[in-house]
Amino acid sequence: MAGTDVFTEIVDGEQVYKYYADGEWKKSASGKSVSIVNPTTRKPQYKVQACTQEEVNKVMEAAKAAQKLWARTPLWKRAEYLHKAAAILKEHKAPIAECLVKEIAKPAKDAVTEVVRSGDLVSYTAEEGVRILGEGKLLVSDSFPGNERSKYCLSSKVPLGVVLAIPPFNYPVNLAVSKIAPALIAGNSLVLKPPTQGAVAALHMIQCFHLAGFPKGLISCVTGKGSEIGDFLTMHPGVNCISFTGGDTGIAISKKAGMIPLQMELGGKDACIVLEDADLDLVASNIVKGGYSYSGQRCTAVKVVLVMESVADAVVEKVEAKMAKLSVGSPEDDCDITPVVSESSANFIEGLVMDAKEKGATFCQEYRREGNLIWPLLLDHVRPDMRIAWEEPFGPVLPVIRISSVEEGIHHCNASNFGLQGCVFTRDINKAIMISDVMETGTVQINSAPARGPDHFPFQGLKDSGIGSQGITNSINMMTKIKSTVINLPSPSYTMG
Amino acid sequence: MAGTDVFTEIVDGEQVYKYYADGEWKKSASGKSVSIVNPTTRKPQYKVQACTQEEVNKVMEAAKAAQKLWARTPLWKRAEYLHKAAAILKEHKAPIAECLVKEIAKPAKDAVTEVVRSGDLVSYTAEEGVRILGEGKLLVSDSFPGNERSKYCLSSKVPLGVVLAIPPFNYPVNLAVSKIAPALIAGNSLVLKPPTQGAVAALHMIQCFHLAGFPKGLISCVTGKGSEIGDFLTMHPGVNCISFTGGDTGIAISKKAGMIPLQMELGGKDACIVLEDADLDLVASNIVKGGYSYSGQRCTAVKVVLVMESVADAVVEKVEAKMAKLSVGSPEDDCDITPVVSESSANFIEGLVMDAKEKGATFCQEYRREGNLIWPLLLDHVRPDMRIAWEEPFGPVLPVIRISSVEEGIHHCNASNFGLQGCVFTRDINKAIMISDVMETGTVQINSAPARGPDHFPFQGLKDSGIGSQGITNSINMMTKIKSTVINLPSPSYTMG
Amino acid sequence: MAGTDVFTEIVDGEQVYKYYADGEWKKSASGKSVSIVNPTTRKPQYKVQACTQEEVNKVMEAAKAAQKLWARTPLWKRAEYLHKAAAILKEHKAPIAECLVKEIAKPAKDAVTEVVRSGDLVSYTAEEGVRILGEGKLLVSDSFPGNERSKYCLSSKVPLGVVLAIPPFNYPVNLAVSKIAPALIAGNSLVLKPPTQGAVAALHMIQCFHLAGFPKGLISCVTGKGSEIGDFLTMHPGVNCISFTGGDTGIAISKKAGMIPLQMELGGKDACIVLEDADLDLVASNIVKGGYSYSGQRCTAVKVVLVMESVADAVVEKVEAKMAKLSVGSPEDDCDITPVVSESSANFIEGLVMDAKEKGATFCQEYRREGNLIWPLLLDHVRPDMRIAWEEPFGPVLPVIRISSVEEGIHHCNASNFGLQGCVFTRDINKAIMISDVMETGTVQINSAPARGPDHFPFQGLKDSGIGSQGITNSINMMTKIKSTVINLPSPSYTMG
Amino acid sequence: MAGTDVFTEIVDGEQVYKYYADGEWKKSASGKSVSIVNPTTRKPQYKVQACTQEEVNKVMEAAKAAQKLWARTPLWKRAEYLHKAAAILKEHKAPIAECLVKEIAKPAKDAVTEVVRSGDLVSYTAEEGVRILGEGKLLVSDSFPGNERSKYCLSSKVPLGVVLAIPPFNYPVNLAVSKIAPALIAGNSLVLKPPTQGAVAALHMIQCFHLAGFPKGLISCVTGKGSEIGDFLTMHPGVNCISFTGGDTGIAISKKAGMIPLQMELGGKDACIVLEDADLDLVASNIVKGGYSYSGQRCTAVKVVLVMESVADAVVEKVEAKMAKLSVGSPEDDCDITPVVSESSANFIEGLVMDAKEKGATFCQEYRREGNLIWPLLLDHVRPDMRIAWEEPFGPVLPVIRISSVEEGIHHCNASNFGLQGCVFTRDINKAIMISDVMETGTVQINSAPARGPDHFPFQGLKDSGIGSQGITNSINMMTKIKSTVINLPSPSYTMG
Repeated sequence: MAGTDVFTEIVDGEQVYKYYADGEWKKSASGKSVSIVNPTTRKPQYKVQACTQEEVNKVMEAAKAAQKLWARTPLWKRAEYLHKAAAILKEHKAPIAECLVKEIAKPAKDAVTEVVRSGDLVSYTAEEGVRILGEGKLLVSDSFPGNERSKYCLSSKVPLGVVLAIPPFNYPVNLAVSKIAPALIAGNSLVLKPPTQGAVAALHMIQCFHLAGFPKGLISCVTGKGSEIGDFLTMHPGVNCISFTGGDTGIAISKKAGMIPLQMELGGKDACIVLEDADLDLVASNIVKGGYSYSGQRCTAVKVVLVMESVADAVVEKVEAKMAKLSVGSPEDDCDITPVVSESSANFIEGLVMDAKEKGATFCQEYRREGNLIWPLLLDHVRPDMRIAWEEPFGPVLPVIRISSVEEGIHHCNASNFGLQGCVFTRDINKAIMISDVMETGTVQINSAPARGPDHFPFQGLKDSGIGSQGITNSINMMTKIKSTVINLPSPSYTMG
Repeated sequence: MAGTDVFTEIVDGEQVYKYYADGEWKKSASGKSVSIVNPTTRKPQYKVQACTQEEVNKVMEAAKAAQKLWARTPLWKRAEYLHKAAAILKEHKAPIAECLVKEIAKPAKDAVTEVVRSGDLVSYTAEEGVRILGEGKLLVSDSFPGNERSKYCLSSKVPLGVVLAIPPFNYPVNLAVSKIAPALIAGNSLVLKPPTQGAVAALHMIQCFHLAGFPKGLISCVTGKGSEIGDFLTMHPGVNCISFTGGDTGIAISKKAGMIPLQMELGGKDACIVLEDADLDLVASNIVKGGYSYSGQRCTAVKVVLVMESVADAVVEKVEAKMAKLSVGSPEDDCDITPVVSESSANFIEGLVMDAKEKGATFCQEYRREGNLIWPLLLDHVRPDMRIAWEEPFGPVLPVIRISSVEEGIHHCNASNFGLQGCVFTRDINKAIMISDVMETGTVQINSAPARGPDHFPFQGLKDSGIGSQGITNSINMMTKIKSTVINLPSPSYTMG
Repeated sequence: MAGTDVFTEIVDGEQVYKYYADGEWKKSASGKSVSIVNPTTRKPQYKVQACTQEEVNKVMEAAKAAQKLWARTPLWKRAEYLHKAAAILKEHKAPIAECLVKEIAKPAKDAVTEVVRSGDLVSYTAEEGVRILGEGKLLVSDSFPGNERSKYCLSSKVPLGVVLAIPPFNYPVNLAVSKIAPALIAGNSLVLKPPTQGAVAALHMIQCFHLAGFPKGLISCVTGKGSEIGDFLTMHPGVNCISFTGGDTGIAISKKAGMIPLQMELGGKDACIVLEDADLDLVASNIVKGGYSYSGQRCTAVKVVLVMESVADAVVEKVEAKMAKLSVGSPEDDCDITPVVSESSANFIEGLVMDAKEKGATFCQEYRREGNLIWPLLLDHVRPDMRIAWEEPFGPVLPVIRISSVEEGIHHCNASNFGLQGCVFTRDINKAIMISDVMETGTVQINSAPARGPDHFPFQGLKDSGIGSQGITNSINMMTKIKSTVINLPSPSYTMG
Repeated sequence: MAGTDVFTEIVDGEQVYKYYADGEWKKSASGKSVSIVNPTTRKPQYKVQACTQEEVNKVMEAAKAAQKLWARTPLWKRAEYLHKAAAILKEHKAPIAECLVKEIAKPAKDAVTEVVRSGDLVSYTAEEGVRILGEGKLLVSDSFPGNERSKYCLSSKVPLGVVLAIPPFNYPVNLAVSKIAPALIAGNSLVLKPPTQGAVAALHMIQCFHLAGFPKGLISCVTGKGSEIGDFLTMHPGVNCISFTGGDTGIAISKKAGMIPLQMELGGKDACIVLEDADLDLVASNIVKGGYSYSGQRCTAVKVVLVMESVADAVVEKVEAKMAKLSVGSPEDDCDITPVVSESSANFIEGLVMDAKEKGATFCQEYRREGNLIWPLLLDHVRPDMRIAWEEPFGPVLPVIRISSVEEGIHHCNASNFGLQGCVFTRDINKAIMISDVMETGTVQINSAPARGPDHFPFQGLKDSGIGSQGITNSINMMTKIKSTVINLPSPSYTMG
């Protein structure tokens, strides 16, 4: 089963990838498709169905019906399905990774890693969910003043219903399963709207879940144009929860969505604060890894370096030296720096770079771009009046702001609209803890670049970076609600032993 | 201090109650006031300030500033303030209860109970919060496949910022402190928008918090017209969390609010399912208490009785007998049934009653109304085509639907848009548990009427009844977010012992 | 690998089973062996090594050394080993089950079930342990009056060291792995002293762990005479924890053991209280299953029936009818009733039966015994002056005491020295809960016979039935201790967000 | 009530303090008393009853009976009693502190602090216990492979029965209430055996509990000779739990005690490891405070300094400078250094000092002793062959061992039989965490001296330093056991929402 044959059925005769509904791969009645451009070649690579609102409605109905039965499936059996899906996913890592290379220009090895890590995440989530859903609370009434012990409250976590998952282009598999697995183990059904760029990888991943034998209608995956089904999905009355990772769209979704739980992970402007006593080699390697991996297209990429003036020259020098070793080119060649996801993205990045140039930033390397491919760039002497000091390039360009005090660094960090992660490099235990405490971000990494994983750690953005904590445990909890049964006894009863 | 003198400063020379901002009692620059009509006399009883948007803006600024300092106050000290406020509140129960009698026609004894229970709630919340905020998680990286133990994640709960609390008219003190206390102990600042009816009781309660010595700006209370400051408050960018209890308005707020946590407790249509083997005396007393206390103006009132045909006559007879003993009249006389909150409310109730009458419901008593005072009414033989089978009267009128099977009862219950609570009366342990499991409401009471307390139990509505679980523990949790610090070590380290 | 070949190495040339130490199968220097008698044939079936005290000392040294390294193994990797062992165990269920048939006369199908359930338990324990060991607490100092937030306490669970596991004969595989798996995942090393009857099955099980590749010395299994190595093991200074399941010996061990955590599961006299409103067919089937499965040789067997006089005749009649269908004979034929484990056990059972006969108990069947095989017997009209009313037969004989009130039943139950489990049959939810509350046993089953599983439920005996709660989660916790690191900051610091 | 009049009834006509049993103050039938010598004057100060075994038996019976009722008292009411006791205790801090000054030569201010901190501890424990006892677990069967959801397990914590509390002389009030309060809130009854030195302070404290109105028999306090009632108490079959703080006696108790939970906090040899990058002023002040407070008579006193050679001279010099400022004299004058508890203790300390002197340790001050008063002494250049390198002086003498590597320091620390606490001074976050991880003690303090508090932190000794974790939460948990009720349904049921 390890070949690509298992994926034959997910594409139609005209090489348009089907959408997944009611346990089957289907062609849209629209007769239309959406084209996916390869960022490297800038030519159309794949096509996916342009689903209709009617098809979305059917998917929602099926999801609602399937969920009722799924919620009556024993926890260990739900976990068994997920373990099976995880195994199938890892088995087929090669063809899925290939999609990631073609669709989003992810370097070949990283693409494989994304799939493997996704399988591990699904399995871990299954076991975590068995525990979270399987253990409720027993509360008694005599805790509260004036009450005898005559009421026993049995409180447990129950599914929300239908979860809508909207992952972003940069981790279309991993950030999909990090929503799918918690939704399913918690007893929900799941509707996936993959990003256009990354949709084909996501469809392959969905096929792995299909092969694991989940009940019909429990999982669906619809593709199409945002203008047609975007708002239609997020405002659909059948949706009981939205888990979204992406950009500003998330804020708009939040404002339009009804009274349902939202898990939003939006942008970030993760700062890297470097103190004078830091291990500068460690700093440099983390800046390069944190800032330029996958060409900076990561929500937790280092997006601004705030370095104490006295060590700034040394840091910049060390970073430059390491940057010189980064390979630039095609993802198939497993280059470090590959084309960014789209031309508009490249243009946006260029805009930030040019603004900084005009306002006097120092370029540590020559700025170079070919198509969507932008050579890695470090911008020194960036100042707060430059757009790049505040905005998120989502590309391989990184600003350095020289600071004269820790307070200045913290102030810059906390003045941001974003609050995803941050990191501080210092050997001093007191400074490390106290700076972490004062930084207004969901996570602060001490002596390492920001990172989403390991996947069981809490992961959350503050302010405009999102709402709701992620990480395996928190995502499962978020996709449940509380239901209580209160046994009222005719007279007080106390548990003896 | 137990007299009413302490409340002198909260009212101005023209007997208009002031609003509370920046640690002081103030008159609005609007020069306008809002009048509060006594439901019993139907004459104006009190006046409160009609605050302006500008004043709201100032309150928000002060709240933001005060919160930063408050979040740096030791937990035990935050608790100490709350204990003090609780003691002062209980000490002044009499004048506050009197407001409840005049503003919302709450029977005199119940009014006192509301204040006392509120004091207990504040104290319990303080101690609970010390524990919730004081204990975080320590996670290590080697739980997840592929990781060594080189990352220690210290995750704790931190305040959200400014919490906006909007309680309803029926428990203007208790449902205010159930938002205020968790907000404060969790390190947030708090802006209260009391209901118009109940505003003066709320202002008295706020004075108790003022006397407890909380820092300036931490707590504010603004009054005014919904049209002027309603949406302005709920959509204000300075608000980091809304805790609302009330009716349909909550759904509208949810749709307009930004990306912030919402705690909504809206309406309910709590069903009382009566099986053939139930203790019918217990049933009758719970229906009367559950259905007619405070004239049915409770979110967890019994709002529809679903009784097995074979015992329906007996149940109706027993309920009627008990209803005959209910006293009807003024709240000052501590009558069981008192005028409903407003004329429009009385008219709405009458509308439901008349609709049922036209469609053939049996009136167990004669329908009688004087002004806002409606005599308690049981409507037998109600059928699903009547509005009262589905809508919430919020008055002393209760429909009985006779069912021929348990399934019919459950179906009616689950077909409702609401999902707050429900109750089932049966002696049979298997039926009790299994019916509770299948009912789609936040809580199911076995052998007792629905109830919000004891206050440390989870309390939540499903579907249109709300979002987010309440109860002391859950409310505190809801008013926090997660912040993590990850210590990254240069090489793996394992804790030995 | 699914054959029996993998077990070749565990037996020596003279068909004496070896012991397991330092990652190898070894012959004892004693040159002596202990013989295991087949309960059915009453002839020697197997031989195991009679290990020496010197060999125990070496095992302890190796265990201590191996533990230090094991405690530095990532949690997920520890789990991986256990998952592997579980898979191997289930793969080789047939040969292991055969040992159970020959050594302890366990019916063939039950023997297979024991092995399979053991595999499941190992896997579940692995995942549970990853979570328990991987999550500690973060406590802050400002919870306690008078303290600022300047101390952060990181508290986690660490291994105890060397765990000594002593399972009983009746579940020599399952009750061994229920000690081994939690010990290992928690980072301890493990020394197993299997029961003589059941030792060969246990050695096979240990070989499955060996094949899974655990580090040398981490797991050991020593066999031998109690007189030689019994006390020597339990009082050994190298032992940091004892987990024992068995009979009175446990109390003696408790008194002699040093300052180490003890987990003891000793005998029981589980009562089955039958109320007048019970489902009598359900009662009868549970009494037969609960009282006679594996010939009553289960710690949680129903060991006395306390039935309300008014339904006693009906219950006895229904039980008799079901008992008539029990097959009696050899375990190879998968009979319901098989020979008890030893002649001395059979004699003890007979003694209890004869005492009851003399004192006037009614025998519902003729008493019959052939060798170790005792036909199932129900004794009616048993009274408190008979030994069988209080003592544990551990055989297929069950006393019925007729009671005239619930209180009488509870009194009998609570007057016992034992306090393992009990059960009550009633349809009435109030009685069920309130009787459960008042029964002084570790667990009360409502409407089912006592049972140890599912294995993640807490399982504990009170009074002389033991100490320490078992069940997967509790066993893991019990095999850890707490270690704290307190970070003291030079000035207060508050976590902002 | 704040005077000393309330203590009149606790002493008899001949100025012998009574013991407390059955809610009354009593004289022993023995007619004998035990004399308490004032460490400062070395003359008899107080007399307490020499209770008989018969009296102990009666106390145990009363405790058992009282506990059954107490376990049926609502949690909030149990807490209310404890809050009352806490308030009374704090109100009478002066007379109780005076006993501490006279009995154990505790400096006057510290004596008051001990009482106040004890009151805080009682209140905190009450609130913590309400939560621990009031919240159980609800487990469902379908978590475990092969099971449907037909079993609901309601598991909660129930009292153990009678708790025997044996605190040590150095904190006779605080270490008594840290056992009494958790025992009581958890629903146990409590028998206190105070240390002879400190007994009168303990009896005063007990009177505060008496005045709070606890039920008769629930709390008892027996005094007397260890030879008469020591083993009799610890081996008494009526005792269900022992919580002991003290010295080696604890190991002996552990070996003799039956199958009951033990909480033992015995000795320690807390090391202070000083790295080269440490803040040496911070080090010095912590060594002086940690090593000499209450003349070193604290289980968590710094008992050996392990300092890197390169900074050793500087550390020693700074410590000497601070030691020169310590006042030496009587506790009434609130001197820093006061007489040690007994002549035998002083002799033991002197023995250790002389041994070190003979073997070549450097005395940083002249050794000086008058009666039980020993002047503070720092011993430099101590080596592992000296007794003071390993033994616990429990006096104002502190050895300094100069180390040439961190490993040497850790090795010394881990080679100890004790494992209570340790501390490490370094600015380096990596070293701090990794050294803490590798130290085999219950707690490691980073950049502060060892400390038992704040009292809600876990506190436990490893190896010969004890068993069972203390701290408020852990002590409450330790004084409970688990009881489960399993509701078995006739068919699977899943909680819907």
